[in-house]
Amino acid sequence: MKVTFQIEGASPVQIECNAGDNLLELARRANVAIDAPCSGNGSCGKCRVKLVEGELETIPSRHITDEESEAGWRLSCNSKVMGDCTVFVPDIASAYQSRMKTADLSSPKEIAIFEDAQANLKNSGIRFENNFRCVVVSMAEPTLDDTMPDNERLTWALQAELGVEKISIPYAVMVKLASTLRQNNWTVAIKGELQGDSFLCMEICAPEDTAIVGCAIDIGTTTVTMVLTDLTTGKLLAKGSSGNGQIRYGADVINRIIEQGKDGGRKKLQDAIIKETLTPIIANLCRSAGISARSILRLCVAANTTMNHLFVGVDAESVRMEPYIPSFFGWEGLLAGDLKLPANPLAPVLIAPNIGSYVGGDITAGTLAAGFWDRDEMSLFIDLGTNGELVFGNRDFMMSCACSAGPAFEGGDISCGMRATDGAIEACTIDGTTMEPTLTIVGDDGQKPVGICGSGIIDIISELFRCGIINARGQFSREGDRVKRDQHGMGRFILATAQESETGREISINEVDIDNFIRAKGAIFSAIDTLLSAVDMTVDCIDKVYVAGGIGSGINMKNSVNIGMLPDVDLEKYAYIGNSSLTGAYAMVMSDEANAKCAELGANMTYLELSTHPGYMDNFVAACFLPHTDSRLFPNSKQEY
Amino acid sequence: MKVTFQIEGASPVQIECNAGDNLLELARRANVAIDAPCSGNGSCGKCRVKLVEGELETIPSRHITDEESEAGWRLSCNSKVMGDCTVFVPDIASAYQSRMKTADLSSPKEIAIFEDAQANLKNSGIRFENNFRCVVVSMAEPTLDDTMPDNERLTWALQAELGVEKISIPYAVMVKLASTLRQNNWTVAIKGELQGDSFLCMEICAPEDTAIVGCAIDIGTTTVTMVLTDLTTGKLLAKGSSGNGQIRYGADVINRIIEQGKDGGRKKLQDAIIKETLTPIIANLCRSAGISARSILRLCVAANTTMNHLFVGVDAESVRMEPYIPSFFGWEGLLAGDLKLPANPLAPVLIAPNIGSYVGGDITAGTLAAGFWDRDEMSLFIDLGTNGELVFGNRDFMMSCACSAGPAFEGGDISCGMRATDGAIEACTIDGTTMEPTLTIVGDDGQKPVGICGSGIIDIISELFRCGIINARGQFSREGDRVKRDQHGMGRFILATAQESETGREISINEVDIDNFIRAKGAIFSAIDTLLSAVDMTVDCIDKVYVAGGIGSGINMKNSVNIGMLPDVDLEKYAYIGNSSLTGAYAMVMSDEANAKCAELGANMTYLELSTHPGYMDNFVAACFLPHTDSRLFPNSKQEY
Repeated sequence: MKVTFQIEGASPVQIECNAGDNLLELARRANVAIDAPCSGNGSCGKCRVKLVEGELETIPSRHITDEESEAGWRLSCNSKVMGDCTVFVPDIASAYQSRMKTADLSSPKEIAIFEDAQANLKNSGIRFENNFRCVVVSMAEPTLDDTMPDNERLTWALQAELGVEKISIPYAVMVKLASTLRQNNWTVAIKGELQGDSFLCMEICAPEDTAIVGCAIDIGTTTVTMVLTDLTTGKLLAKGSSGNGQIRYGADVINRIIEQGKDGGRKKLQDAIIKETLTPIIANLCRSAGISARSILRLCVAANTTMNHLFVGVDAESVRMEPYIPSFFGWEGLLAGDLKLPANPLAPVLIAPNIGSYVGGDITAGTLAAGFWDRDEMSLFIDLGTNGELVFGNRDFMMSCACSAGPAFEGGDISCGMRATDGAIEACTIDGTTMEPTLTIVGDDGQKPVGICGSGIIDIISELFRCGIINARGQFSREGDRVKRDQHGMGRFILATAQESETGREISINEVDIDNFIRAKGAIFSAIDTLLSAVDMTVDCIDKVYVAGGIGSGINMKNSVNIGMLPDVDLEKYAYIGNSSLTGAYAMVMSDEANAKCAELGANMTYLELSTHPGYMDNFVAACFLPHTDSRLFPNSKQEY
Repeated sequence: MKVTFQIEGASPVQIECNAGDNLLELARRANVAIDAPCSGNGSCGKCRVKLVEGELETIPSRHITDEESEAGWRLSCNSKVMGDCTVFVPDIASAYQSRMKTADLSSPKEIAIFEDAQANLKNSGIRFENNFRCVVVSMAEPTLDDTMPDNERLTWALQAELGVEKISIPYAVMVKLASTLRQNNWTVAIKGELQGDSFLCMEICAPEDTAIVGCAIDIGTTTVTMVLTDLTTGKLLAKGSSGNGQIRYGADVINRIIEQGKDGGRKKLQDAIIKETLTPIIANLCRSAGISARSILRLCVAANTTMNHLFVGVDAESVRMEPYIPSFFGWEGLLAGDLKLPANPLAPVLIAPNIGSYVGGDITAGTLAAGFWDRDEMSLFIDLGTNGELVFGNRDFMMSCACSAGPAFEGGDISCGMRATDGAIEACTIDGTTMEPTLTIVGDDGQKPVGICGSGIIDIISELFRCGIINARGQFSREGDRVKRDQHGMGRFILATAQESETGREISINEVDIDNFIRAKGAIFSAIDTLLSAVDMTVDCIDKVYVAGGIGSGINMKNSVNIGMLPDVDLEKYAYIGNSSLTGAYAMVMSDEANAKCAELGANMTYLELSTHPGYMDNFVAACFLPHTDSRLFPNSKQEY
């Protein structure tokens, strides 16, 4: 039998199948993007499709109302094909995954974080220097009396210009040499890398094209962010982000590792990140910066251990299976050409070192950027992402651990969740008396809300709790215009009615969302708790807290403390340092010393495996309340109504 | 309109075209192999096809008799398409080009030449050593207490085994690391290259597979020959040859340079040598040696300057155009993966250095193998190929030049010509009285003749001349059963009648063949003459003559002198050293010192450009007689009947 996918905004796709085949599996086989953060176990409710014709056998789900079911909506993960059928696939997946966002670099706020990181690292003695060069050389035209062949002619010119002995001309340059020299009247730009006493030519081009560019990439489980930087000056040339295309194979690393272990899975997952995610962003950023992709001479990827494995296409199974030994922590030797990334094929791809199966290069790079490795202050570094990772320490020692927070901080697992892009509710206050919310929306003036991003959820839950609208378990305990319940009695708080929203759909937060979020914040706090106990310390020992992650710069530390996500210490100790994984990658791509320092940090950091650590589960359960079962830990958190 | 090519032994191919399109061009566009050594100028007569249906407008040719024309035979280069038509394409091209020959290495004769070269080079102080290694290493399985990741585990094991500090694990090995370690219970074979204090891992495999292999390739304009050798012991593993697939784009380098300059031409010519010629031979030799292509860790190519450029896909136009400056003489940095050769993609491809547009790496490699660069004796080195190249000198100086001999020495430009493979007449004597020939045929006992190879042609012409059957101009001057004339009066000598031959077609040599050959031998001798005068010497100064080339080990030096091809010196001074270009490449792939020595030879050799040298044309014209217009140069050559 046959299934036809009518894809919103794209051509339909048909696939042959057998009776009983799972619809989500079929979509994946047919390369039809259906968002399935829970990897098809029925819990997230995102994989909805609409039956247009034919028959499906579907298990009912709390995510589909009776009216929706009547209209044909089904969860594809819960549906079996029973005959020829046609289903409509809404473009939610691509909206969530691939909506590419290019940053406005004229905004000082965008640039400040990179300038700060650079200044901090320089203060710690890290020079922002690398060995990539572009030189313009002129040669005499050959004659009957000057019979030197092209490659020797270029070698002599470069030896004179650069003062090095050995010039390596690889194949990619050699095949263009004759024509480029002649088309440009023997004056050309050569881009490459000094390597000790030799110079590797990576590109030959017209003398006007002198750009040499670095590309720093943060590959998050949910979101990918990237900057292009001038390798000489460190100036940002372009910045952009999009969802990680792998999300349709699972929202978390475990589901993706399972998926890559299936036949052809490694290639599928690698294609999803490289071809479907990174390639279009790089192309877009190159266009916006006005440079050719071949000018990208070095890249640096900061990502968690699983993302690193999936990115290079190395089997990640051992990350998940005891004894949890990945194929690599650090690894030198990867080239852009190995992965067919749109960059100079000879460009080295640096990988910020992983230190364990669940503390990866995003954390070593983030620690590098945070800079406390050079200070006496006891610092806590928290990266809020799909995995929450922590580092605690100072110049003398550093200890790290990871916990699985789920995608809530990036808007996943939340019915109206979204990333911190245009239309996201990034902050919120609620009037305790009227229960009327006041929203701050990402985007231009007049932007109507589309959904809720991580920082918005923190604010909303904190405000709902402060106003007594929800109780310590996250259940609705006040009634009002903004509080509604469905036929099963599940409560929700309406932030924007269908009329007030951009999409014409109500934006609300319900008890399942709140429960998901409480588990996420509980995972973070209990990890902090456990990590501090492991080194025999308490929150009082903390001199500084660095909060990083893509949940939006609007994160309200006070609210985060109120709900028991972050420790109840003086708010002045808190600093939000943005996407420190990207900042760290930026430092590494620019600076050979930063790169070496990051390797050193990775080698010296101790990794604490929480899942096998006694006490962690108890701590987690205790933390799944607002703010905590032990309220003495949060003396400053209280309900005001 | 449409042309259908009915290809002997293959599926038919159809192509759309316009009225007036040239049939040979259409065949090339449709990738139909038609042999056209003269590149379609009507002179060679090899591109014959048979019109089956439809209409062609064909210029008559001396290569097609009236009966043949009646039967439908046409030269494709002389034919224009005038309507839909179907032509039959005989499989001559592939028979000539691609018949692959695998040598029998149990024959001491095949091996002797390589052993001799190795012994000679060792005597000159060249060590047969390289830095390629295969080591088998065992590692402890990771546990919860031994959490080193795979790549570090391998690095430690290799550091201990090899005693080097840095281990480079490139992408190709990294992606196989996890599975290969686990499938082989943590004992694996690693193949790679020591590079100073570091080791580059090139391959990881099961511990049984320890072969590390070098591949030496001689790319001739007409013939390609190759050996696989054990990189540790130097033992030959396999040897084979085939025609150079580029031959359908022209028999000589000039026609191929013109062809590569057309749109898409560089790719076409590169595909013809790499995909169509080298790839099947390598696959075949690997099979016969029982090794995997990924075990080939180094290759060396010895070829003339044009072949080198076409092989790497670098524009060769500058080889042909004043000031005749190629893109490169020597070049380090080429990898097998750059060219998609079936070998380890990281295997370096050494290129024996060219020293001018028309003296290439085949000659520097051949000079290396001949070994006179280390001796006091004045030596003349002659490589007989489509181009004839000469080197004259000793340990103090070396001078070289090239002349265009055409493909006659390899059986081209000769109506019944063939390479020195099974069925080739490789030697011949003729009874002066009866004019009956006695033939020596390549192959098993009872092998009937198929055609004539280079050494056979030398013998035949020498014997015809000695017996007075042809005169000094190469025209028939005696009549007899074996001498026939066609309707135009052109004489030919029948070596085998249709009944006596393997193919059922008469094997003969005609006046056009003899004329072609006299021009070839004239080119060689006049080059020798000119080169000696340029250094103010005469043939008396020659202590040793090394004759190299693929014309067959049966070359009769006395006959070569008789016809005025080689100088009339004591026959004991002559040595046939076989395909010295291949022997040199073999030495280079095995020995780093041989490789360095060859670079040194290339740098120190002086190149004499004959085409612009005063006197060469006069010398050439004078040499186009049997034996020469100045018979004092050949006191030992005489007609006996």
